[in-house]
Amino acid sequence: MKKSGWKIVSEEHIGNFRIFDIKQLKAVSPRTGNQHPYYLLDSTDWVNIIPITKENEVIMVNQFRFGTSRMELEIPGGMVENDEDPMEAAIRELREETGYIGNKPIYLGHVDPNPAFLTNKCHMFLVEECKYEGKQELDPGEDIEVQKINIKKIKDLIKDGTIGHSLVICAFNFLDLHRK
Amino acid sequence: MKKSGWKIVSEEHIGNFRIFDIKQLKAVSPRTGNQHPYYLLDSTDWVNIIPITKENEVIMVNQFRFGTSRMELEIPGGMVENDEDPMEAAIRELREETGYIGNKPIYLGHVDPNPAFLTNKCHMFLVEECKYEGKQELDPGEDIEVQKINIKKIKDLIKDGTIGHSLVICAFNFLDLHRK
Repeated sequence: MKKSGWKIVSEEHIGNFRIFDIKQLKAVSPRTGNQHPYYLLDSTDWVNIIPITKENEVIMVNQFRFGTSRMELEIPGGMVENDEDPMEAAIRELREETGYIGNKPIYLGHVDPNPAFLTNKCHMFLVEECKYEGKQELDPGEDIEVQKINIKKIKDLIKDGTIGHSLVICAFNFLDLHRK
Repeated sequence: MKKSGWKIVSEEHIGNFRIFDIKQLKAVSPRTGNQHPYYLLDSTDWVNIIPITKENEVIMVNQFRFGTSRMELEIPGGMVENDEDPMEAAIRELREETGYIGNKPIYLGHVDPNPAFLTNKCHMFLVEECKYEGKQELDPGEDIEVQKINIKKIKDLIKDGTIGHSLVICAFNFLDLHRK
């Protein structure tokens, strides 16, 4: 496999936008010898969780998303906080967003949300035998409806576009790889 | 399904960062009645392409990515330009990044890269019977090595983390759904 060969000549902090920072890199191309600018979004890692009940229902979250301007059917997830490991974040986000708890999370793997300009990873977990524990504890900026969907319906919901979030689709893909 | 209920009260352009613009929305929560800020990244749509030869090899691209600071094994892809439709962009990106051309692209579907803060879609295409046509035509900021990988090896490369880009994983997932 080819080596990188890029030489980074400067790195500048451009600004903080709550859930990420923007940095600008300048780097010299090994191919042309010219210098090029790259904007990066620096963010903490994310987690998402596939929570499943004994009855093979996935505990999903349905909420308005400002990026796509529509209600999105997703699995619970969020940002890993400074002092957390990803598994703790998964347990916390599941409990806060849905009110459910379950068995110890099983690590499914991680993906890079976008290696071109996002610096973080998204860690994916499976939580089995989920049970309702008590009321959601939502962040001020969240308004989330919980919806239980039979696991057998997920592929059709991806195919017909009801589930559109790339990272949610990746999590179900990793669940398939895990169960094979 | 629950209705949104959010009321957007302002929208401000924060800045242009070459491949995206940042906007700030302020919106009133239907749950709490309080106003919250949301940062959005406005970008044109993206495309990615699974190019396959008669011998069932996928034409992949291997390049250094500044987000993850490592060489990434991906499929060709890029931004849809202003005057293009996604299929034209797919044909163009395939030719520019790899030097290959093939049959008319088959639309596999689209995903939302991140509905929380990205406004765009990623359209995914399959291009069969790919053949080498001539030299790559790379953008000044690109340095790409072409690598042919047998389609049967893809799942293992996703599982072991060699292929890490979430949108590349989504494209192979949609190829599976398409072929079933």
